[in-house]
Amino acid sequence: MARVVVDVMLKPEILDPQGKAVEGALGRLGLQGVSSVRQGKTFTLELDGDLDEALLAQVHELAGSLLSNPVIEDYVIRETSA
Amino acid sequence: MARVVVDVMLKPEILDPQGKAVEGALGRLGLQGVSSVRQGKTFTLELDGDLDEALLAQVHELAGSLLSNPVIEDYVIRETSA
Repeated sequence: MARVVVDVMLKPEILDPQGKAVEGALGRLGLQGVSSVRQGKTFTLELDGDLDEALLAQVHELAGSLLSNPVIEDYVIRETSA
Repeated sequence: MARVVVDVMLKPEILDPQGKAVEGALGRLGLQGVSSVRQGKTFTLELDGDLDEALLAQVHELAGSLLSNPVIEDYVIRETSA
């Protein structure tokens, strides 16, 4: 049993309105010193069996096509202990 | 400059329709062996200065009130190198 986490974030050059909204709210709620907030999506995939090269390649392919929009988003794959 | 990541996920007992939709799509796209997919939100906060105890306590307070809904969501705070 392997657990893979795919974090999908907007590319740095893309404006993040949700992040800006949270940024403003954090300031109003008294958390000073927040220079920026970026919001993204995170997917936790539970896979049967071990994460071998072939399966990791498939996860990369799907992360770059289904789970994220490569035009405006970047993704990072983290393997966590299941 | 400290960078803090707050991962917000639905509690395990809460049905995750978006995760189920992705799960179905992954199967149709040929990734076999995916037993479950959970979708959540991730917030990357850039903080001025170092992350001391007081600031970390504030981030916890905000993560549990503004960034997540404690009734249906759990959050995890990860400190990453800025």
